[in-house]
Amino acid sequence: MISEKVVSLVNNGSAIRAMFEEGARMAKEYGRENVYDYSLGNPSVAAPDVVRQSVIDIVNEEDPVVIHGYMNNAGYPEVREAVACHINRLHGTHFSSNNILMTVGAAGGLNVILKTLLNPGDEVLTFAPYFVEYKNYVSNYDGVLKAVRTDENTFLPVPERLEKAITSKTKALIINTPNNPTGVIYSEDVIKSIADILLKKEKEFGISIYLIADEPYRELAYDNTEVPYLTKFYHNTIVGYSYSKSLSLPGERIGYLVLPDELDDAQMIIAGAGVSNRVLGFVNAPSLMQKVIARSIDAGTDVAAYDINRKLLYDSLTSFGFECVKPQGAFYLWVKAPDGDDLAFVNAAKKYHILMVAGTGFDGPGYVRLAYCVDKAMIERSLPAFKKLAGEYKLNGD
Amino acid sequence: MISEKVVSLVNNGSAIRAMFEEGARMAKEYGRENVYDYSLGNPSVAAPDVVRQSVIDIVNEEDPVVIHGYMNNAGYPEVREAVACHINRLHGTHFSSNNILMTVGAAGGLNVILKTLLNPGDEVLTFAPYFVEYKNYVSNYDGVLKAVRTDENTFLPVPERLEKAITSKTKALIINTPNNPTGVIYSEDVIKSIADILLKKEKEFGISIYLIADEPYRELAYDNTEVPYLTKFYHNTIVGYSYSKSLSLPGERIGYLVLPDELDDAQMIIAGAGVSNRVLGFVNAPSLMQKVIARSIDAGTDVAAYDINRKLLYDSLTSFGFECVKPQGAFYLWVKAPDGDDLAFVNAAKKYHILMVAGTGFDGPGYVRLAYCVDKAMIERSLPAFKKLAGEYKLNGD
Repeated sequence: MISEKVVSLVNNGSAIRAMFEEGARMAKEYGRENVYDYSLGNPSVAAPDVVRQSVIDIVNEEDPVVIHGYMNNAGYPEVREAVACHINRLHGTHFSSNNILMTVGAAGGLNVILKTLLNPGDEVLTFAPYFVEYKNYVSNYDGVLKAVRTDENTFLPVPERLEKAITSKTKALIINTPNNPTGVIYSEDVIKSIADILLKKEKEFGISIYLIADEPYRELAYDNTEVPYLTKFYHNTIVGYSYSKSLSLPGERIGYLVLPDELDDAQMIIAGAGVSNRVLGFVNAPSLMQKVIARSIDAGTDVAAYDINRKLLYDSLTSFGFECVKPQGAFYLWVKAPDGDDLAFVNAAKKYHILMVAGTGFDGPGYVRLAYCVDKAMIERSLPAFKKLAGEYKLNGD
Repeated sequence: MISEKVVSLVNNGSAIRAMFEEGARMAKEYGRENVYDYSLGNPSVAAPDVVRQSVIDIVNEEDPVVIHGYMNNAGYPEVREAVACHINRLHGTHFSSNNILMTVGAAGGLNVILKTLLNPGDEVLTFAPYFVEYKNYVSNYDGVLKAVRTDENTFLPVPERLEKAITSKTKALIINTPNNPTGVIYSEDVIKSIADILLKKEKEFGISIYLIADEPYRELAYDNTEVPYLTKFYHNTIVGYSYSKSLSLPGERIGYLVLPDELDDAQMIIAGAGVSNRVLGFVNAPSLMQKVIARSIDAGTDVAAYDINRKLLYDSLTSFGFECVKPQGAFYLWVKAPDGDDLAFVNAAKKYHILMVAGTGFDGPGYVRLAYCVDKAMIERSLPAFKKLAGEYKLNGD
């Protein structure tokens, strides 16, 4: 009777959110100290203090009618200008405020650009494993998400598989580096090989293929690993960004899209994205938070805190005998289910009050995802539980 | 090549937004003092000071990881509880936090509920003239918006016309009282007559027809006119609310949906709306602003300021010979185009630097909409211009 699509989504649930709520339930039953919740990518590092100070300064200094009022659907001109300048300074690009659309987080930005690009039946590719919501976002606009498997050991794109997957109906490729859930970062060489294939296929089919870079984890790169800026490698690149992780503002829903002049149909896409932002009901990115961003744009991300967690968890779990992909970025550890059954592994971990998300939900069966954006003390408390879990699987840890 | 739906929206433009941008252009050319912009419903009354103070208190007192973090997609439990209690206190209802879903404004809320309810081809009714975006919101989910004409003089619903318009494919009726663009308020009798018809047709066709009350103007009622609370009159009522007008926070994108237990399929709709909120990319209503709402919920709306504008503009324009609907609520004046041609009337007004929106854009040709949520001084400055405009149309004003 009500939307069949939505009923099916409700019945399938979100594995991550379900686990988050399971965590809350278990915390009530066993005490928060005794539950080790690695399920949700909710930053554990507090927003930098410049955010707090900016909020206070803005509401004290500026006109409330302007602070909380409507502006152009794309955002305040001075905020878009500040974002463009910031990107240009960091990456040597040449964007103007016209190329920036402020969005309700990266999730809002992805919906805006997919609505703007897709006609029913259009195909969108992404590399598996992938962030579960991509499928829902594409389906919102009657597109079809097609997963291209990454290398089984490195979880990096395999160029031949990408080339094979592209058809005349391919409208876009979504890539996510640093990657959720695997933590890998695509090097310049990987990016170039992807760009070459897209260019070749654009010519072959006489179509435009848009590369959508979903970049909420851009600043979360460890060991000084470079995260190439994708617009420099391929003309039809659109960047979706969020301050959820870099400034620890996930609940505020603030991010942006970069829509370069080099895009095929650039002017129509820029105008269309503004319209999509409006008609989808976002209207504009939250106004006060836009102004906070402009004032906090140079604040650094506290990567060091996550790096400590990364090393502690990776080193401990591998020492217990678990096989893990060493994360180069983001704040996720991708761990192999010892017997290949990730759903059973997740359930086994629950007995020890460890909450993790099955890779199956990311189209990455055989693995689980641990979000280590948590208190270091929780990781420390959880280690004996992981050791017991390793024992249950008879792993050869020390 | 890109989305045909979006290209068509871009090419048709938003009359209101276009006028808003025209206003900015004219202000540059002629000076802001000499342009009389009545195009956009952007509140001119500042947010109450409790908003500013709440913002400061929250960022100073509460944990930034919580203030800016993820929460349940439906919103912070204590904020939903505060909203439910507030509604119950005002209207004698019995909602719990479970019936409240915090949304990215009313526009976000309407998109969430329409996505949750509609299957392709479902019909959604609304009374014309109506807020232009309803058509786009319904179209986002492949529904069909069908307008039911109101009475040509009172702009109130005509029960027989509603009855005739309902078919077995009718899924919902959107109503908006106080109304944008006409300013009318539906009395209890009007609501009851609508409810009777919906009930009768539900039985006749064996279907559920959801009444969606879009209520951003609920608090903006003049002369103590009562705005009935619709859930009390019809079991399948969903309320969409926004703080854009009542607390002057349109840019912040904060509102809520009321999803009563009495709805057919209530549990699935409540779960589905949470999922829709997530997959459409809203994820959750902006977190800091949710907390601000909980602390500012008892702040009154400064109706008096708008009432002064309403009287000044209505009295002046009628004295110049214009025919206007006397607004009972909201902050719009619905003015008859003297010769019936609203598009020509809008253009004629531009010559005198008056910006108003043609009724055609609201499916209400022959009228124009003036948004009087502006500085009173602007209204005063504009009166000689309106007098000249009346002269051009040879009206019998004094």
